Amino acid sequence: MKLIRFGAPGREKPGVLLPDGRRVDASSFIVDYDEEFFGSDGLARLERWLRNAGASAPEVPADARLGPPVARPSKIVCIGLNFRDHAAETGAKIPEEPIVFLKATSALAGPDDDVIIPRHSEKTDWEVELGVVIGKRASYVSEADAMSHVAGYVLHNDYSERAFQLERGGQWVKGKSCDTFAPLGPFLATRDEIADPHALRMWLRVNGETMQDGTSADMIFGVPKLVSYLSEFMSLLPGDVVSTGTPAGVGLGMKPPRFLKPGDEVELGIDGLGTSKQRLRACR
Amino acid sequence: MKLIRFGAPGREKPGVLLPDGRRVDASSFIVDYDEEFFGSDGLARLERWLRNAGASAPEVPADARLGPPVARPSKIVCIGLNFRDHAAETGAKIPEEPIVFLKATSALAGPDDDVIIPRHSEKTDWEVELGVVIGKRASYVSEADAMSHVAGYVLHNDYSERAFQLERGGQWVKGKSCDTFAPLGPFLATRDEIADPHALRMWLRVNGETMQDGTSADMIFGVPKLVSYLSEFMSLLPGDVVSTGTPAGVGLGMKPPRFLKPGDEVELGIDGLGTSKQRLRACR
Repeated sequence: MKLIRFGAPGREKPGVLLPDGRRVDASSFIVDYDEEFFGSDGLARLERWLRNAGASAPEVPADARLGPPVARPSKIVCIGLNFRDHAAETGAKIPEEPIVFLKATSALAGPDDDVIIPRHSEKTDWEVELGVVIGKRASYVSEADAMSHVAGYVLHNDYSERAFQLERGGQWVKGKSCDTFAPLGPFLATRDEIADPHALRMWLRVNGETMQDGTSADMIFGVPKLVSYLSEFMSLLPGDVVSTGTPAGVGLGMKPPRFLKPGDEVELGIDGLGTSKQRLRACR
Repeated sequence: MKLIRFGAPGREKPGVLLPDGRRVDASSFIVDYDEEFFGSDGLARLERWLRNAGASAPEVPADARLGPPVARPSKIVCIGLNFRDHAAETGAKIPEEPIVFLKATSALAGPDDDVIIPRHSEKTDWEVELGVVIGKRASYVSEADAMSHVAGYVLHNDYSERAFQLERGGQWVKGKSCDTFAPLGPFLATRDEIADPHALRMWLRVNGETMQDGTSADMIFGVPKLVSYLSEFMSLLPGDVVSTGTPAGVGLGMKPPRFLKPGDEVELGIDGLGTSKQRLRACR
């Protein structure tokens, strides 16, 4: 299944993108794609409902805005320098253990929403990433068991302000959490839709020019390892998002570095997870 | 006012601790102390309700467990090395800008809940901290305006696993986010209750022995600066918690370092914010 959320920011309703391309409104049956939904076997209930009532459910208006396909989760956990080619371009060593940081959930945005360049920013950068959505609480789970805790996958652009992240003292969160810096979607693809999360092409273009063109095969730590590893340090809750790192081709890695400016258009995609497009604009 | 939440973990109800020491159940009037409550002038409504109906509201059972006095917020933002004496004991320089990290909200616990020492932990440590609860969305607010975005204050023990935090690669979040590592409470004191948040004694004892005995006067960056500063990097939402750093006396700073073991009892307090006590236990 492909789950979507549509409507005005903060008031999105749940829906489903059907295999034939139609989009149906599931809000008569589901409150939201949130912790309660994923944690109470909501995906199985939704599938049954779709079979019985899907055909007669109202369609999503053609011009509806898409929101992030999951409701605001308890956390967005991001993995740094998790692609061999990206670690190399930043001059970092291959990490011995996953590098973990949190991105504020107040940064969430719809897949095609405008992205706001923060005040005083000169180094706003892009990062196409594979997001993993947790389906079942995970605490001390083994790698062998980890995939049973995954609900599905989602396209994420992990926007980053490099000066805020790296030149302002301390931890990375300052450059990762600005409002609109986490466009998610267009849809959540359930786990069964992605045969192998480690064999997906991942690409990103700025104003039509290809900047990133990699594959999730280049991940240093794969999805089962990441879910298992993280669950040793904190409980992952249903609906939580784990963003698994970006391949080479970010602006910071270029010589000279290139960053985004108002009016730029960023388009990205991952096999099986659709595409998204953001226009950059200055903070008012 | 002093806000409390009581009942089983995850099913807490809102209540109020009255000046005469009685505790009343506010759940007939308030759903929870959450983003919706703080963001819709809930404190003013609660105050009116207390005046009219407080005397006749049911009392909280005497043996009720206390939960964290705010519902799970969108984020817990922590400030590192924000006390002169603590920066000195860790051998760190006085930071030029606030050091910011996020603590997973899944770490929240009640003030007197057991704290679980994670598996493979050898360096579980304590940190008495003044938590600031946001009352009104804050984005690019000035220092002069910052206090109008504060709902109140809360006692926080920012438990930290030092090996996870400092020896496992990358960012601090791994050692800050373990389940139960954020006991909050006993109550949220509204802003009017604390005349000056920068003149509060802060203390912590382990098994009766005083480990921390400092004052919020030693903060490098005060509350208005922190709220204003953070709001340049992310929106602070109603109910969010900003934990403002710890004074000297953590286990890591001792010679030799001292860490917690199962059975230890940690008791802490801040002027005007009550006291809390946690017993440490091993992870099952």
